[in-house]
Amino acid sequence: MEAYQHILLAADFTAHCDRVARRAADLAGIYQSKLSVCHAVDSLPIAESVYGPIIPFDGDLTAELVAAAEKQLAILGATYGIPEDRQWVVIGSPKTEILLLAEEHKTDLIVVGSHGRHGLGLLLGSTASSILHHAKCDVMAVRLTDAGK
Amino acid sequence: MEAYQHILLAADFTAHCDRVARRAADLAGIYQSKLSVCHAVDSLPIAESVYGPIIPFDGDLTAELVAAAEKQLAILGATYGIPEDRQWVVIGSPKTEILLLAEEHKTDLIVVGSHGRHGLGLLLGSTASSILHHAKCDVMAVRLTDAGK
Repeated sequence: MEAYQHILLAADFTAHCDRVARRAADLAGIYQSKLSVCHAVDSLPIAESVYGPIIPFDGDLTAELVAAAEKQLAILGATYGIPEDRQWVVIGSPKTEILLLAEEHKTDLIVVGSHGRHGLGLLLGSTASSILHHAKCDVMAVRLTDAGK
Repeated sequence: MEAYQHILLAADFTAHCDRVARRAADLAGIYQSKLSVCHAVDSLPIAESVYGPIIPFDGDLTAELVAAAEKQLAILGATYGIPEDRQWVVIGSPKTEILLLAEEHKTDLIVVGSHGRHGLGLLLGSTASSILHHAKCDVMAVRLTDAGK
């Protein structure tokens, strides 16, 4: 079986998401793949939210979120040996931006957290599901539970 | 990172699905996991089909499909060293039956084919998506394209 050449870790920084990063790093180690990490800062109203429409972030808040995400990715990068030029913060819908990055950089595996279908998971779960539907490459969905197992 | 202990391959026998089996076997080899394989023979009307409702299979046809699936699983089993008692043909909705098997046997990774969102993929894709939504364990969705890459 061919080894994965380039794995993209989609980091969402929710509780226990380190499990997703560890699995991505584990697979990258096993297959000797290049590993990149991305995080999408959503600046758009989330029309499909079950809680009703969410007001778009203003510019300053978006800049703060981007800076915070960059710090988080730097920590992940240091932990798992991902160089700075493969730590990508993008602004926009996670569903769309993660797929665009994957195509642009020709990744052959996306590793993403999969949340339960309750509470926050209703919202976050849809990102994993949309990635699975639309990705042109393989997708590993790492199950995240309240217990973080 | 903990190794997977028991991987469940969800086989659908569509074109190029051998890629899914090879990935499951590859991961099982890497992690030294137990590998099981299942196929669900759907005997129910598919109410959500985009082509309209599909007439349920009759009993004889279901028995024939089960026998055919058993043969296919036996071939997969011989190819990838999966013993007969871990080759499971179940009757019912793939979405439900695969998840039930995964829970019953406490598998920690399900490997399933992910089809495009066109033609047959509209139907089959929903199985992978539903498994991702509802599984209590990790899910690897192996992308199947027309080219079988």
